[in-house]
Amino acid sequence: MTGEADFLSALRALATHPAARGFADDTAVLTVGGATLVLTHDMIVEGIHYLPGDPPADVAWKLVAVNLSDLGAKGAAPIGVLMGYSLRREPDWDARFVAGLGEALAHFGVPLLGGDTVSVPSGTPRSLGLTAIGEARGRVPARAGAQGGDVLWVTGTIGDAGAGLRRIAVGQPDGPLPDRYRRPLPRLAAGHRLAGLASAMMDVSDGLLIDAQRMAEASGVRIDIDLAALPLSPELIAFEGDDRQVRLAAATAGDDYELLFCTCDAAVQDVFAVAEELSLQMTRIGRVTGGSGLILHEQDDLIPLPDKLGWQHS
Amino acid sequence: MTGEADFLSALRALATHPAARGFADDTAVLTVGGATLVLTHDMIVEGIHYLPGDPPADVAWKLVAVNLSDLGAKGAAPIGVLMGYSLRREPDWDARFVAGLGEALAHFGVPLLGGDTVSVPSGTPRSLGLTAIGEARGRVPARAGAQGGDVLWVTGTIGDAGAGLRRIAVGQPDGPLPDRYRRPLPRLAAGHRLAGLASAMMDVSDGLLIDAQRMAEASGVRIDIDLAALPLSPELIAFEGDDRQVRLAAATAGDDYELLFCTCDAAVQDVFAVAEELSLQMTRIGRVTGGSGLILHEQDDLIPLPDKLGWQHS
Repeated sequence: MTGEADFLSALRALATHPAARGFADDTAVLTVGGATLVLTHDMIVEGIHYLPGDPPADVAWKLVAVNLSDLGAKGAAPIGVLMGYSLRREPDWDARFVAGLGEALAHFGVPLLGGDTVSVPSGTPRSLGLTAIGEARGRVPARAGAQGGDVLWVTGTIGDAGAGLRRIAVGQPDGPLPDRYRRPLPRLAAGHRLAGLASAMMDVSDGLLIDAQRMAEASGVRIDIDLAALPLSPELIAFEGDDRQVRLAAATAGDDYELLFCTCDAAVQDVFAVAEELSLQMTRIGRVTGGSGLILHEQDDLIPLPDKLGWQHS
Repeated sequence: MTGEADFLSALRALATHPAARGFADDTAVLTVGGATLVLTHDMIVEGIHYLPGDPPADVAWKLVAVNLSDLGAKGAAPIGVLMGYSLRREPDWDARFVAGLGEALAHFGVPLLGGDTVSVPSGTPRSLGLTAIGEARGRVPARAGAQGGDVLWVTGTIGDAGAGLRRIAVGQPDGPLPDRYRRPLPRLAAGHRLAGLASAMMDVSDGLLIDAQRMAEASGVRIDIDLAALPLSPELIAFEGDDRQVRLAAATAGDDYELLFCTCDAAVQDVFAVAEELSLQMTRIGRVTGGSGLILHEQDDLIPLPDKLGWQHS
């Protein structure tokens, strides 16, 4: 792990251009001509980011969705993607992947602009990369912008993808929870509308707690989360109930691709107006204060942080 | 191979946006705001695009150079790159790679804007991806623009990288020929100056003959190449001599990253002026005519096309 940390810090030392935002964000923000471009490149690897048995069309969907989610968290509208694909002489898998890719691109209205295809030996875990390019027409909220006194919000519901993964593991791959895991829906419209209101914004990809901790660290603030306020879906509660363990699992599971964002108190009514307009739940789940780190409580009880705050796959 | 061809044609069917240029070019060309962006994503895979024993710093250099070469062939100036990297728990390799990456980015004056790092099991062949973003301030010549009557040109010298690979194979890894293989120099300045003059332009990555054939096919023309006109370097001739076999090897070896381009007769003096200004050889090696396909001759002798026109790794 030291080698990996050294590698990442050596890479970060190369990211001196302001557009790189010191790698403290999930995207680069580049001004070209009069346009503000938002750029991201995320990879997914078989056995790490998806299950070898996952339907290829769902893998393609996820590859597109996780990248568009990064754009959404910056308020940017996607304008195109480039794909890096590993061919492994499995034409049926490839054909089903392309079908899913076409479905996802059509769903999100994003064109495939180019990319590269390389052959890899059979037996090599598949590694798929996507670069997504977006355009922001207004403010681009950073992960690092949270201010003491801000309200912490999350869109939608948390923990569904993790519960979906557990359902798939017990042989129940159908229904809304597995769909949340396999076909995440990036919050593009919400990100676009919230970008002007949020002091900080990022997507919840690795787990609410770990992502909130990263926001606190990047912003130099303390974030205090109320586990009791976490929005759980009726499907999740029906499947797993609702107690502290369920809420901790939801807060650390990842793959939700909801938006985690902060606003000042004066913007609360504006956020609720956006929520109503988009018919998308937006929930206050905590507070930003001075200091550093992450604090978890459940109503008035302080709760020790779990050992694992989320996924740390790199 | 049928599966692969089906896959590529299914992908091409998704590339309906004009910016994708139907995948008939090496780059996408996207207008955003008032800016013309040129985008490319190329991968290099261990054992296919580079040798497992190649110095990691040279692999990093090549990853940057092959992508910038695509931008250069469109006359675009690079404005940033995003990298997709596979970590394999080999910290020494990683550290030497990052050093070479920093060297290449500094040499070409291009910032690292972001990307992703994923861990892969040890034993997995390394697969590295780079997205390069460039800006074009004028015309963006397509691969498909060659016109009957045009002159066919190439920059620099051809075959050096292939000869360098053969020197490395016989245990002579030092000198200008191996350097051409390991540290290719994309023709950014030449591409920028030629973009306004060229009816068609692309880089020579897989081999002069196969790349010329692709240009002919994309343009719907016939290209006629004079093997005797091929510019060989003094180093290549000193190493391998100069006969038909040497010239055929040079024309099919690939990895040169020179520019192959067409102009009308009226632009010939302008091309020579650019050549002089940049102190870079530019050589007329053939003609574009009506019809289709690739014709090879050596002065007055028609030569049958070799079985292998270049690399067809996908």
